[in-house]
Amino acid sequence: MRISTRSAVDPFIVMDVMQAASAAEAAGRHIIHMEVGQPGTGAPKGATAALAKAMDEGPLGYTVALGLPALRARIAQMYGEWYNVDLDPSRVVITPGSSGGFILAFTALFDTHDKVGIGAPGYPSYRQILRAIGFDPIDLPAQLENRYQPVPADFADMDLAGLLVASPANPTGTMLDKPAMGALIEACGAQNASFISDEIYHGVEYEKKAVTALELTDDCYVINSFSKYFSMTGWRIGWMVVPEDHVRVVERIAQNMFICAPHASQIAALAAMDCDDELQANMDVYRANRALMLEGLKDAGFTKFAPPDGAFYVYADVSDLTQDSRAFAAEILDQAGVAVTPGLDFDPLRGATTLRFSYARSTGDIREGLTRLKTFMQARK
Amino acid sequence: MRISTRSAVDPFIVMDVMQAASAAEAAGRHIIHMEVGQPGTGAPKGATAALAKAMDEGPLGYTVALGLPALRARIAQMYGEWYNVDLDPSRVVITPGSSGGFILAFTALFDTHDKVGIGAPGYPSYRQILRAIGFDPIDLPAQLENRYQPVPADFADMDLAGLLVASPANPTGTMLDKPAMGALIEACGAQNASFISDEIYHGVEYEKKAVTALELTDDCYVINSFSKYFSMTGWRIGWMVVPEDHVRVVERIAQNMFICAPHASQIAALAAMDCDDELQANMDVYRANRALMLEGLKDAGFTKFAPPDGAFYVYADVSDLTQDSRAFAAEILDQAGVAVTPGLDFDPLRGATTLRFSYARSTGDIREGLTRLKTFMQARK
Repeated sequence: MRISTRSAVDPFIVMDVMQAASAAEAAGRHIIHMEVGQPGTGAPKGATAALAKAMDEGPLGYTVALGLPALRARIAQMYGEWYNVDLDPSRVVITPGSSGGFILAFTALFDTHDKVGIGAPGYPSYRQILRAIGFDPIDLPAQLENRYQPVPADFADMDLAGLLVASPANPTGTMLDKPAMGALIEACGAQNASFISDEIYHGVEYEKKAVTALELTDDCYVINSFSKYFSMTGWRIGWMVVPEDHVRVVERIAQNMFICAPHASQIAALAAMDCDDELQANMDVYRANRALMLEGLKDAGFTKFAPPDGAFYVYADVSDLTQDSRAFAAEILDQAGVAVTPGLDFDPLRGATTLRFSYARSTGDIREGLTRLKTFMQARK
Repeated sequence: MRISTRSAVDPFIVMDVMQAASAAEAAGRHIIHMEVGQPGTGAPKGATAALAKAMDEGPLGYTVALGLPALRARIAQMYGEWYNVDLDPSRVVITPGSSGGFILAFTALFDTHDKVGIGAPGYPSYRQILRAIGFDPIDLPAQLENRYQPVPADFADMDLAGLLVASPANPTGTMLDKPAMGALIEACGAQNASFISDEIYHGVEYEKKAVTALELTDDCYVINSFSKYFSMTGWRIGWMVVPEDHVRVVERIAQNMFICAPHASQIAALAAMDCDDELQANMDVYRANRALMLEGLKDAGFTKFAPPDGAFYVYADVSDLTQDSRAFAAEILDQAGVAVTPGLDFDPLRGATTLRFSYARSTGDIREGLTRLKTFMQARK
């Protein structure tokens, strides 16, 4: 049977690191995992308790495609609490993770070979999903002086059908403030490009609250998830907010492509939204880890990075240390016993001189990892 | 913001029936639901118990994209038990429902505007998913004398890139036997079309075991799910079996499009595979319902249908009663208090003269529904 050209998805470079790390662990070595993109914590206890109760009470059949009304209402309420935005619950669409949100959004908005701008560096799957379902991702190389976020000049006259931004971003952790996001929204409007805001790291913020695109316009798609702040990665549950006149269109696509998001995950997610104490305890860990990273990475000799506003990553320019981030990551794993992600997954061109360090795991691990990195760098001089 | 042409998904006609049924129920009327496509039962007790235990034991983070190794191995084992097929677990891909399987399979196999043959009548979402991600579904009008299954003559010289069949089928419940399926596989091979076998209703069989395409060839995609026999609709968990040299391709697409199937559902599904007693008790209900339907529908005056080999539907030709199945379904709901599905969802052309009756719910409901249908038909004469 033929394999399609569409399915020519780039491999994740980090998979090589992860396999090498697994092999080292299988051989008895202790590895510190700074390559992972998921919290070490599970769903809040209140979430799993609610699901245990629901499982005793009755069958968890299909929900309607847009999701449980109580969950949609609770998410709308959160926009009031977090951002002072008055959101109609009917605009909230429950999705199978933000992954499902991307598939729905791209399908609703774009036609074959439409050009969709994505910032580089950025989440690798944006590019792969767009290609796999027949669109043309356009990398917009973002600048360190813009804190690696795209600006209107990066896509002037490009005839984009859409622009996808993330704030806080993966891999950099940088955020768009209101003026910066407003300028992007305006530039999109001027070329009739749809504006998609990936807000998956909202809630995981350090110095100030992240801005939702909904504070600036209703004419956008917002994609979010329970995977990060709510610590529910494996549950595959997220949401979108779409313009009122797009709800029916998205509903029909969702009915056919997904039927519904996992019912059990919807119940757990609803309960997770009332587990602030446990979620804020997770945030305390990230805050402590971030402080250690900012100091420890510099101390080790990784000095060129923007302090992250949110998420749990530091994206460092290592061009003074290597021109081959893949080999450098392999060297760090081999000699320091620390797994890190080469920038090539996030920026196919310039990522050869960058690394992403994740601090999503325990503070003890972060401390040990930083010590190992310092020793490694001293030996390398 | 622009809405794409791709997103012009047909509405489900049955949604009108369901909304009218809900409205009638809200007004205090009692409605028998013969329109639904899901079991009234939930996941087996062993499945929810296993999940409750796992939730107590640790976080349910991402699994690897191909799914939990134990679940893949258990599914491979089932092919030995059910079909005497020796299947390498590495060819089993866990998916977010069969819906996720379709998206993965189509993306792996087809390029933009490739033609994919689907039988009419058939599951409506085949057509909609294919269109939404940029392929061209080709309806193959199947004949009653072929028990509504496609035959090679239906797609000779069509230059199809793929053929998708279902056995047992929705809405007809008819199956392909080995010679019939073998002929289709051979005809596909002759025009270099990929063969996709939707086996979601396997296990829900009455007279004999359904044939899996894997008994005939390894050069096919098999799509299945825990939604029907295992009674786990809302859990969004299924699987595919793909040729050995397609596994890496499908894995990369899955990593990017879905990350993984819901972890909780994977745990529940694994346990469900050892709940034969409860699942066979569900089958006893379907068997009793089917026997009632075969007699009761004929008794009421619906006489033109093929007895279903599997699934839980009867697809009846009502051309002697109406030329407008949508209006007829509305009339049945209004006058008999029985919700049924107009054939138009399954066959956009000829479905104006067909109805689908589901017998997935309780035997008491089926008995009452048949009584009401008989009274309605007598009054209509």
